[in-house]
Formats: sequence, structure tokens, C-alpha cells
Amino acid sequence: MPNKIYIIDVTNSTKHETNYLNANLELAEKGFLKPIRLAGWIRAIKEDVETTFDLVPKIKHLNLSISTSDQMIHGKFQGKKTKDDVIKGMVDAVKLAKEKGAETIGVNAEDASRTADEFLHKFSLAAKEAGADRIRYCDTLGYDDPFVTYKRIKLLAEAVKIPIELHYHNDLGLAAANSIAGAKACIDAGQDAYINTTINGVGERAGNADMLSVILALKKSSGMEKKYADALQGIDLKKSYNIAKYASYAFKIPIPVNQVGVGANAFAHESGIHADGALKDRRNYELYDFEELGRGEVELVETGRTITTGE
Amino acid sequence: MPNKIYIIDVTNSTKHETNYLNANLELAEKGFLKPIRLAGWIRAIKEDVETTFDLVPKIKHLNLSISTSDQMIHGKFQGKKTKDDVIKGMVDAVKLAKEKGAETIGVNAEDASRTADEFLHKFSLAAKEAGADRIRYCDTLGYDDPFVTYKRIKLLAEAVKIPIELHYHNDLGLAAANSIAGAKACIDAGQDAYINTTINGVGERAGNADMLSVILALKKSSGMEKKYADALQGIDLKKSYNIAKYASYAFKIPIPVNQVGVGANAFAHESGIHADGALKDRRNYELYDFEELGRGEVELVETGRTITTGE
Repeated sequence: MPNKIYIIDVTNSTKHETNYLNANLELAEKGFLKPIRLAGWIRAIKEDVETTFDLVPKIKHLNLSISTSDQMIHGKFQGKKTKDDVIKGMVDAVKLAKEKGAETIGVNAEDASRTADEFLHKFSLAAKEAGADRIRYCDTLGYDDPFVTYKRIKLLAEAVKIPIELHYHNDLGLAAANSIAGAKACIDAGQDAYINTTINGVGERAGNADMLSVILALKKSSGMEKKYADALQGIDLKKSYNIAKYASYAFKIPIPVNQVGVGANAFAHESGIHADGALKDRRNYELYDFEELGRGEVELVETGRTITTGE
Repeated sequence: MPNKIYIIDVTNSTKHETNYLNANLELAEKGFLKPIRLAGWIRAIKEDVETTFDLVPKIKHLNLSISTSDQMIHGKFQGKKTKDDVIKGMVDAVKLAKEKGAETIGVNAEDASRTADEFLHKFSLAAKEAGADRIRYCDTLGYDDPFVTYKRIKLLAEAVKIPIELHYHNDLGLAAANSIAGAKACIDAGQDAYINTTINGVGERAGNADMLSVILALKKSSGMEKKYADALQGIDLKKSYNIAKYASYAFKIPIPVNQVGVGANAFAHESGIHADGALKDRRNYELYDFEELGRGEVELVETGRTITTGE
């Protein structure tokens, strides 16, 4: 069976969200949220597993997260945890979550991009052995570039042989590129990929990988062979524009004019040569069509500038 | 001498801007614009060269652009030009511009990303022979991904052996990643790189490569060895914040909250674990410092949410 790429949304579960989480689980039980699979996110320590099953007993899918880099072990745990403690705590937490009834568990290596391959593989193999279903490679600071991503994710997927979840931040503007590089590496290594994305690319600091950019890049860019686009699961691009607008409205965060696919200018041509060329044949200056993304009508942007036509 | 990477801004020169261009050339002559080198952009046809030197006689640096892809030759020129016409017209234009007094000429292969290597190299070698100083690889539709970029730019730089100018659009969210992949390829091929960027990433449709993202990615990302960061020329990051704010004000385009480095949230931590970790050691959750970009003070974002502390 060919491997698959799943695009998933990132959520956080914290104590004050107990009612919200329980309500959503009830909706899910009644079938209203299909095909969404709700997953909780907690620290990979036994205490968080205990608390979670006390407060949200029906939770079935969990992400357990712990930092794995030297920077975090020294800078964040500040002498309270060694590398062995990190692995032992995570293994105990995974086993406890399984006992409590968790059906699927992803184990997150926080700051994986600053973690050496050797420790990352050891940590990930221990997670798999304890019962984890996926390893999440977290580029917590948006540090990797696509070449490092491809190399490291391929090595990890080949070494651990379970699906890899890809979590990229955008601090260097590389989140979408890293996400597609990681998915490519997983498929090439014979494993499924799960890509963490957010609507309109919002998220901590400079945001996380933008959902629409990642999907379009996998489907449309020059180097992405058909096998990567074909591996994409559960995509209906026709909803893109409405989802982007709704998220902008709900979060009160305006959509930038140059946002990929859904920004006000994403299909606007201002320079005369581009405008003229696009009128002759849309494929001259557009890689995908606005109809494909569920945008009703193309906008004409009146700039008041003289247009120099192409030829 | 080691090769260098130059970050340059993209400008367009069209007829209605004659007064503006002449005024700027006067300012440049008086030394007010140093170290900026003003370059005009026209089509690579003799008529445009004639018009340019009639209207803006003091122009010294030019980019001459013509489409090179099959898509454009069929879809845009619509039977009026063959591939041979494209090369001949460009060569004549370059020679004429040199005769008229152009000191440096970049030749732009529009839609290079949909142009086969063979024709692209033939076109570029003809440009070099006619006197061009740089070849601009235009990813006009934002079509390439970083792996294709690296491979194609390295082949081009090795074949033509002159500096390459890199022009990436962001239709798939990959403009910054492609820009650094292209620069890496140029340096690895022993040629200088010129990267076209725009302030805050604005530009046609989903924009062009964001200046600050590209610089930070070259300087800070995990795979960029010191030789790439060292190749960067003329960078004073302390101006970043002011330039971004000024451009936003002048263009009347708000800076997105999650804009790399300069967005309101670029240094804000909302999740409890991130906030707690950042307070313990800034390097836990920040790859670069806000002071480095000339931001006066870090913003505290009051969200009213309960904070779950890390450990």
C-alpha cells in the first residue's frame, strides 16, 4: 500500500479548556466532527497523563511532548532532568496513557532540530517500543532549512520505521518549504507523513506552516512528482477560501493581502506586462485557478496606473 | 576571492515614471543614495532600449527581460516570436544598451522555472557573449521548490560562469526557501548570487521573497554553513524594524502579526510552556534577538489566559 501524507491542525489542551474539550469529545462521539480526529496535547510526564484522564476521561488520541535538545535540557530543565530522565519519563507516560485507554499516541521531540540524530533516534525507538504510533519532529524555533529537513527526516523515518509527524515554525520564513521537504523524505523512506499546519499560518511568534501553502506546494511545485501529490489524504481545496475567511474573522487576525491563495492580491496583477499576459492565457501568470480554492470571483484591483502592455 | 551574496530590491521602470527615475538618478549622482545602485528594468527588445535612453539618458544599470519558456512563447507571444527570435532580440538589445552607455546589464529569463535547461543555458550564454553581467533566473509563477532550485541554479552557474540573480515569487509559500537554495547553489558553483527581495514580502499576487526572511535564513538556519552567511554583503539588520514599518506606512499595507522578525507577535509567546521557557533562557524559544533587528522593546501580549508553566 502506498504511503500517505496527512495534513492536520495543531491544538493545545490545557486545564482551563476542560469543558471545551469534553464538549468537543461529546460532539465527536455523536459523529458531528467527522472526519476530524480530536487529539489532546500534554507533556510526556506521568502527572500530565493522570490529570488528563481525570479531567477528560474520554480522550482517545494524545500527543505527549518533551524536549530532547541539549539547549532545552540545560536551558529549560536547568539540571532537573538528564537525557536518560527524559527518555524514562516519556516511556512511563506513554505506557500509562495506553493503560488508561489511549488508542493512538504521538510522541513529540520538542526542539528536535537542535537534537543530535543519535539521541533523537534512541528517544524515538524507545517511544515506539513503549507503544507510540507516531514520532513528531518539532522544529520548535523554525531553525531547519529544507536540505537539513530532508536528510534528517529520511534518516529518522528509516531508523524508527513508524510514521513521522512534522511540526515546523516560520521564524526564518521556511515553514512551508520544510513541511514539504519532510513529507517528501517520509514518502521516500516508505513511511506515512503527518504535517502540522495552521489556518493562514498563524501560531506562536512568526507562526507555523500555513495549511494552504503546504497543500499547494505538494500539489503544484515543479519538483513534487505525482507520487507526493497523490499521497495527500482528505483534501478539498474548494473550502480553502471560506476556511481562511472564517479563521480570520474568529481569531480577529486580518488575512495579509499577499497571503498564498487567499490574500486579496493573490490573483491580482498590477504590472502591465503581467496583466496583459494573464489576459491572453491565465496559465502564463497563474499556477492555479481561483475557482480551485473556492474563491467566487476574481478581483480587479484599480490602481490608477498607466499599463504598459506586453506583446 | 570568495564569492558573495547580494540582497537587492526589485524595481520597475515604466514610461510614466520618467520624472521619478530622472530625479532619483540626480540624487544618486550627488551621492545621496549610496550604497544603492539604481537599476532600470525593461523588456529585452531594441525598442525599449531606445525609449529608455531617450527618456532616462543617464541610466547606467539595466535589467533586460524576456520570456524564455514554451508556455510563454506560445501563450504570451502567441506565434509572434520563436525561440530563436527571443535570443536574437535579446542579444540585439544588450548590444544596443552597451553602445548607449549601460555599464552593467542583467539579462532576465522570465519564467525560467518552466524553461528547459538546454534552452536556458543557450539563452544565457548568448547573453553573456553579448556583454551581460548577470543572468536573472525568474521563477515568475513561484513554481520551483528548493531541491529543483538548487539543482537548476548550480547547473546554470556552472554552465554560464557569471553571477546569477535569483527572482522568486511566493505563490506556493516557498520564495524565501528558494532564494537561499539558489544562493547556496551559486556559492557552491563558484559564482556570486544576487537575491531579489521586497520589504515585508509584498509584490505581485502572493508577493516576492521577503528581504528579512532571506537574510535571517542565510544567517541563522541549521544547514547554512558559515561560508554562506559570510558571503552576505552590505547587511545592517538593525535597520530592519524601521524599514519594515516605513514600508508598511508608505505602501499602506499592514505588517501581518506573524511577519518574520517584524510582526507584532514575532517575539511574543502565548503558550504557557513557551513563555515559561523563554523567561528561563531566551535562546530556548528564540533563534535571534529582537535587539538584533532594531526593535526597541519586547512586547508583552496580555491574553488573559491561565498559564501552564513548564518545568
